[in-house]
Amino acid sequence: MHWKIFGICAACLTTFGFVPQAIKIYKTKSVKDVSLATLLQFLFGVTFWAVYGFYLGDWVIILANIVTFATLIIALALYYKYR
Amino acid sequence: MHWKIFGICAACLTTFGFVPQAIKIYKTKSVKDVSLATLLQFLFGVTFWAVYGFYLGDWVIILANIVTFATLIIALALYYKYR
Repeated sequence: MHWKIFGICAACLTTFGFVPQAIKIYKTKSVKDVSLATLLQFLFGVTFWAVYGFYLGDWVIILANIVTFATLIIALALYYKYR
Repeated sequence: MHWKIFGICAACLTTFGFVPQAIKIYKTKSVKDVSLATLLQFLFGVTFWAVYGFYLGDWVIILANIVTFATLIIALALYYKYR
């Protein structure tokens, strides 16, 4: 069994996990039910993950979390635009 | 510098990242703006992470993702209750 497949699927799913939420905000222009705390908690979380990846010298951790950071910045920008 | 602190903070923030969203759904009883796709994408993502952690024999990865899985199940149960 190619176990690495699970790791790659896991990374793709969670790295781009906030893309559907960002698209939904963009389409509906409404964020009443979206938790700002969840978005901010993930923003700080992935920042710390990237710093930790830098310490480990692990570029996969750094890159994956920079990509998630970027999607969260877009989601947060849309949140503040439509709140 | 205690770099491990960044890893621990990162793990705490992202592992419990959906708790504020679940609390918000519970309080407002409204999920109109919440992306079901984001919740499901993370549910499958953390499941794959746990499987990958099992393959690596890494209990930190397994446990962190099982905890996130549990918070997502609660968020999804609330989503379906109030949609």
